[in-house]
Amino acid sequence: METISSIYNPEPQQEKLPDISIDCLVFGLDNGRLNVLLAKHRDGIRQGQWALPGGHIGKLEDLDSAASRILQEVTGAQDLFLEQLRAFGAAGRFPDARVITIAYYALVKQEEYKVAAGGPASDVKWWDIHEVPELVYDHSDIFNHGLKTLRHKVRHEPVGFNLLPEKFTLLQLQELYESILDVKLDKPNFRRKMMNMKLLVDCNEKQQNVAHRAAALYRFDESVYQALTEQGFSFEV
Amino acid sequence: METISSIYNPEPQQEKLPDISIDCLVFGLDNGRLNVLLAKHRDGIRQGQWALPGGHIGKLEDLDSAASRILQEVTGAQDLFLEQLRAFGAAGRFPDARVITIAYYALVKQEEYKVAAGGPASDVKWWDIHEVPELVYDHSDIFNHGLKTLRHKVRHEPVGFNLLPEKFTLLQLQELYESILDVKLDKPNFRRKMMNMKLLVDCNEKQQNVAHRAAALYRFDESVYQALTEQGFSFEV
Repeated sequence: METISSIYNPEPQQEKLPDISIDCLVFGLDNGRLNVLLAKHRDGIRQGQWALPGGHIGKLEDLDSAASRILQEVTGAQDLFLEQLRAFGAAGRFPDARVITIAYYALVKQEEYKVAAGGPASDVKWWDIHEVPELVYDHSDIFNHGLKTLRHKVRHEPVGFNLLPEKFTLLQLQELYESILDVKLDKPNFRRKMMNMKLLVDCNEKQQNVAHRAAALYRFDESVYQALTEQGFSFEV
Repeated sequence: METISSIYNPEPQQEKLPDISIDCLVFGLDNGRLNVLLAKHRDGIRQGQWALPGGHIGKLEDLDSAASRILQEVTGAQDLFLEQLRAFGAAGRFPDARVITIAYYALVKQEEYKVAAGGPASDVKWWDIHEVPELVYDHSDIFNHGLKTLRHKVRHEPVGFNLLPEKFTLLQLQELYESILDVKLDKPNFRRKMMNMKLLVDCNEKQQNVAHRAAALYRFDESVYQALTEQGFSFEV
């Protein structure tokens, strides 16, 4: 959203780098749905169009800090773990000037983040990933690349630590995978693979106050979770 | 090597983006040794210091094309498969100006590439990864990050297609892994894991003209290689 940030210019603010921007791809999980956080251009010739929240980097600002600051300014979302995705730099990607953008991404539990349009955005909204509107510039490419990366990642690293309650059922974990991968998984097969990974610890407790038959509760083994994050694995669901 | 490229300015040449550079991390395999290609600053206050080959992106140039062009200009190496590693953008990484750099990396069979210093470099040289000299700016961080990424990658994707002869022995494949991972591997264990992956096809041929007992030759199964590259695996050697 380079246009936006060139319009958005409150004081006091340090000078920005003109050739390079940041765009943030925030995926949110909400009741089994995977959404993405988009911002609407408030001004300029792309007024009313949707985009990934983005902006320019301050001359004295670290790249990673800039990503957090920009996301917060445009959407209000803060304190989330943004990881660098990659740079996008096709010569014609941005029509108004030559700008290379560095994309960051995150996966969060949506309910934990209050969002509100700020700075150059007139609106921010979580969009179901199946209903994403047309996006400005190459932002659809960034979205598609980020979604692919996210799905690859959950097949090769543990997922769920910040997305599930501390104690959760196997069904909750399966539904988390199903939301991200957009597939229906076979229950016995999923359970067997999960248990083989030694990632889960049986809490020896059952769910409370549920209408259906109470299921067993599990938690992650933190050291296994950490080790598998570092080593990686292949989880062909 | 932003300084280098700001000095190196042959005509005709398009205008460069000032805030953003590219640095290339090329690993070369040579008789069981893993090396990295470095370039020496020819001019300026860092004259004589070693750096990753790098430079600035043309205003009309795609990011990926710029990486290939810069590597070729500085080192002569061409037609290799450069992949984006990540952007490095700490505020103080480059003392002379604010420049964010996007690092690219590659792993090649060293003997296939002729290198010669060009443009802003007075020398280029393959350095054993254990003997890398002090590098300018944050180039040691980029090198360390790239080496870690390379090692992670070979544990999770097949390696060797462009690094081994078409037909190779299991020992050659093991030595390839040993060079990259910098470990000694257990022979029976390595062989068993490799065979379990169904990646290798027995050529039903033996080595010719060898002093020792001729070993069996294998080739990669291309479709398995491709599938494993896409899916990934976990190969705990």
